[in-house]
Amino acid sequence: MSLVKSDYEEVTISTKPIFNGKVISLQVDEVQLPNGQTATRELVKHPGAVAVIALVDDRMIFVDQFRKPLERMQVEIPAGKLDSGEEPLEAARRELEEETGYACESLSHVCSFYTSPGFADEILHIYVAEGLKQVGELKLDEDEFLDCLLLTFEDAQRLIQEQRISDSKTIFAVYAWQIYRLTGKWS
Amino acid sequence: MSLVKSDYEEVTISTKPIFNGKVISLQVDEVQLPNGQTATRELVKHPGAVAVIALVDDRMIFVDQFRKPLERMQVEIPAGKLDSGEEPLEAARRELEEETGYACESLSHVCSFYTSPGFADEILHIYVAEGLKQVGELKLDEDEFLDCLLLTFEDAQRLIQEQRISDSKTIFAVYAWQIYRLTGKWS
Repeated sequence: MSLVKSDYEEVTISTKPIFNGKVISLQVDEVQLPNGQTATRELVKHPGAVAVIALVDDRMIFVDQFRKPLERMQVEIPAGKLDSGEEPLEAARRELEEETGYACESLSHVCSFYTSPGFADEILHIYVAEGLKQVGELKLDEDEFLDCLLLTFEDAQRLIQEQRISDSKTIFAVYAWQIYRLTGKWS
Repeated sequence: MSLVKSDYEEVTISTKPIFNGKVISLQVDEVQLPNGQTATRELVKHPGAVAVIALVDDRMIFVDQFRKPLERMQVEIPAGKLDSGEEPLEAARRELEEETGYACESLSHVCSFYTSPGFADEILHIYVAEGLKQVGELKLDEDEFLDCLLLTFEDAQRLIQEQRISDSKTIFAVYAWQIYRLTGKWS
């Protein structure tokens, strides 16, 4: 196994800022390719996000919310963007409590992944929560509306079939749940 | 289990086009929220993509390429954007052959997921290939440079630990591979 580490690097020649929004920014870079030619790269910058796998007995906690890019409701594991300067672990604890009303005794890192490395730098950190306890009402952002659900593994698999679960982090969570059921380990 | 289907819809008031690129476009929508207030939504439009899980004996086919948004090399399963009007199944067959030099006898759909439903509509369709046969040289796009690798399951798990595999589709593929090793099924 040989992994080339640097021969394929694309060197930035220029960066053109296009948009600077509340959530994302966009720039177009001109790059020099390994063969000396040039190309453009459209790059979305994102602050990063967290998501939480949380089991209450044999059911997992999900939220059901409207997703404007898809123009429909989506069932997902609790998740949210990192606030400025916020540690992922703290963001995971905060999002879980705000979106579901559950606090947890501990959070363990399962994995982190780039959602779409072809055009975006968004990284999503996934944790598994243990020692769940319902502590209060939801505390949603002013533009956030959602329901909290507890689903069995079979419910979750059915919602994947029905495409009501259809995002990368939640499908990952259900696959990880299957491995946990088979092996007792989350990763 | 009760899933609200429409009470949380965000109604588009206006759409402002920001950027129309080679790969993505960006618009900012003003929406009316369920409580009557308004908010903005930053929306990236993407043509959709495909990725292929392909085993040759006990090794999976990966490609190692530079990812400009991450400014480093990444080991990923073969993947690519849909061409205009192209069926996902055909795109999967094309990308596998172009990026790896392998043809396959059949492709089965494993799952499709939205990579980042908070800000983008990109959907990724994942297939598993069977009957792999090396048929020729790579046929890469003019701005595409990569190496093809065959890795064992243990190699792939190690590359996840080393963060050389760190994107959603490839981590999903390695988790699905673990389930396949445990159950004989890909989904």
